[in-house]
Amino acid sequence: MFEFVIDATSGAARAGTLTLPHGSVETPVFMPVGTQGTVRALSPNDLRSVGATLVLANTYHLHVRPGEQVVEKLGALHRFMAWDRPLLTDSGGFQVFSLEGFRRVDEGGVEFQSHVDGSRRTLTPERATEIQWVLGADIAMAFDHVVPGGADLPTARDAMERTLRWLERCARRHAELKAVVASCDQTLWPILQGGTHLALREEGLRRILDLGSWTGLAIGGLSVGEPKPVMYDMLERLEPRLPTLPRYLMGVGFPEDLVAAVERGVDLFDCVAPTRNGRNGSAFTPDGPVNMRNAEHRDDPRPLDATCDCETCTTFSRGYLRHLFMAEELLGLRLLSLHNVRYLIRLAGEMRAAIRRNAFGPWAGEWRRRYLHSGTA
Amino acid sequence: MFEFVIDATSGAARAGTLTLPHGSVETPVFMPVGTQGTVRALSPNDLRSVGATLVLANTYHLHVRPGEQVVEKLGALHRFMAWDRPLLTDSGGFQVFSLEGFRRVDEGGVEFQSHVDGSRRTLTPERATEIQWVLGADIAMAFDHVVPGGADLPTARDAMERTLRWLERCARRHAELKAVVASCDQTLWPILQGGTHLALREEGLRRILDLGSWTGLAIGGLSVGEPKPVMYDMLERLEPRLPTLPRYLMGVGFPEDLVAAVERGVDLFDCVAPTRNGRNGSAFTPDGPVNMRNAEHRDDPRPLDATCDCETCTTFSRGYLRHLFMAEELLGLRLLSLHNVRYLIRLAGEMRAAIRRNAFGPWAGEWRRRYLHSGTA
Repeated sequence: MFEFVIDATSGAARAGTLTLPHGSVETPVFMPVGTQGTVRALSPNDLRSVGATLVLANTYHLHVRPGEQVVEKLGALHRFMAWDRPLLTDSGGFQVFSLEGFRRVDEGGVEFQSHVDGSRRTLTPERATEIQWVLGADIAMAFDHVVPGGADLPTARDAMERTLRWLERCARRHAELKAVVASCDQTLWPILQGGTHLALREEGLRRILDLGSWTGLAIGGLSVGEPKPVMYDMLERLEPRLPTLPRYLMGVGFPEDLVAAVERGVDLFDCVAPTRNGRNGSAFTPDGPVNMRNAEHRDDPRPLDATCDCETCTTFSRGYLRHLFMAEELLGLRLLSLHNVRYLIRLAGEMRAAIRRNAFGPWAGEWRRRYLHSGTA
Repeated sequence: MFEFVIDATSGAARAGTLTLPHGSVETPVFMPVGTQGTVRALSPNDLRSVGATLVLANTYHLHVRPGEQVVEKLGALHRFMAWDRPLLTDSGGFQVFSLEGFRRVDEGGVEFQSHVDGSRRTLTPERATEIQWVLGADIAMAFDHVVPGGADLPTARDAMERTLRWLERCARRHAELKAVVASCDQTLWPILQGGTHLALREEGLRRILDLGSWTGLAIGGLSVGEPKPVMYDMLERLEPRLPTLPRYLMGVGFPEDLVAAVERGVDLFDCVAPTRNGRNGSAFTPDGPVNMRNAEHRDDPRPLDATCDCETCTTFSRGYLRHLFMAEELLGLRLLSLHNVRYLIRLAGEMRAAIRRNAFGPWAGEWRRRYLHSGTA
């Protein structure tokens, strides 16, 4: 269980297979984000229809509402959200450090105010681990201290050091829980922090690997406001030092970021972009993003993306999709979310195929020429 | 085409089969309302999954947005909304008489202000007929003059007389259009008005039947604010005078109204209640309506309605549905809309089965005992 096999490589890009309790996952993989135990506007059947294999849910959000005890009473997270394939829960670290309003961080953990009812709550490495254990996803994430993208070296070092100490506490608690209920299959992945400071990231990576034997590794604290070339450069420099483990770049991303990151050895991604942008009327296509509200689509009988096999593209015209957005109809939110998620899942599949042909570089060049330069964006 | 066969009766209640260009429809039937060319929050696949056979769309709404020319360019209404089963379009009469703001009625038609862009527009019997012809539904409705439920006799008579004159104009224009394109199969149904004045309704009915040979008949101007017993009484008194034609009670309704109206010889219904109430968190169940926001559902693992075969009831717990509403997740709007539409379609199916057993009365008694008196409402 939790085995990761590299099926093929092409440069630094890898095609792998990750075995999880609820199924195996082919990488590169894009995880749709089900923050509150539902991928916004999509049903589990929709997710299956677009080929989702691994879905992310959020510990902070499910803790504040409905509460992990409720999820537990309703049969744990898989049953709760009726998703029988693999799940990953984020630890809540990113959320509590992103919250507006009151927050107090000390060595013990983070005290914060619930965005739902304003109640004071505390997340510690142990609590975040216990909550995720109760939720029961296939993969749990360590509780980390996240700093803004532009954090200076002392701030970034302080957060990284704390993240390392918290990682030990998460791993200890996770091992204790696992010892009690041996039947529950869940793995815990560490999160590498260190801001945009390469030496700090390198040191953090070394120390994470020294701490234990992991089944995967997440790269956190990127795509949080720093320029994109900085993120790409960091990934490129880290790549040679990364172990074979599955590599998860948290909170990424947009199509061009997925391609750039896979090129630099990343395997897993999550991002709200496909659903959030979809709800705003923006659709990914091979020729770049398209705004479905544009008047040019008014009486266009063509599908949104003629190359796409999703329900949206095989059923409806651009003209009808535009009508749904102009008329503020709920179906539009769902149809564009569905297409955008399918787009990223197909993109990951195309990358996997290119890696298996050992032709990732030429494929990426072609892809970029069409996506970035077609002028529809 | 447009044949209506009575398969069975039980008292005044009828089970029939209506043959339409896009398929046949078993009655009693509930039509989901796709005001703007989409049943709110539901896709055509959703509608098929709940067994919808006949769907309603709205002439006024599609005329003001996106405009019937756009719908025509996109392949007419069936192709536009990707619904290949029968469609019925309301004439726009009800909408222009319900609009807030400017409205001027004369013998020619109604001048009104678009709720979308404030533009002045005019609907006449001829225009409403032409627009519906372009939209291309199986059944078009005559353009009628609607008055409020409590309208006095002179007001109601004036509107009824105008509705009769307009019916002649609609029928003439429809025949002209049909003569040009003989291949387009669409029928036109008259609407009986007359408020709550029985003698007026009786006279209106006689005069409609004198005007021509129809394939169906709608009863308008009920369920518009008058007390329910008034509506039931009116239906009961009209019933012996109604021809065998399919009888469509417009804008109804709630489960108890469907049962009461079928008992009084009605065959077709439409109402936004299942989708609107669903979006508000209210679900129909055999034990009466349930508010999914109630705290009692918090950790209830049971399905919303254990007797129901819809995706919502076979997949999710009450606890999860409540969570979706508390967390304001879009999926909740869809799941309750889906269930409520399925509920009314199953209710119509149960009524049909009871009629075929010639046991409508006892069935209705049982149904009411459970629905109205179970105390969960």
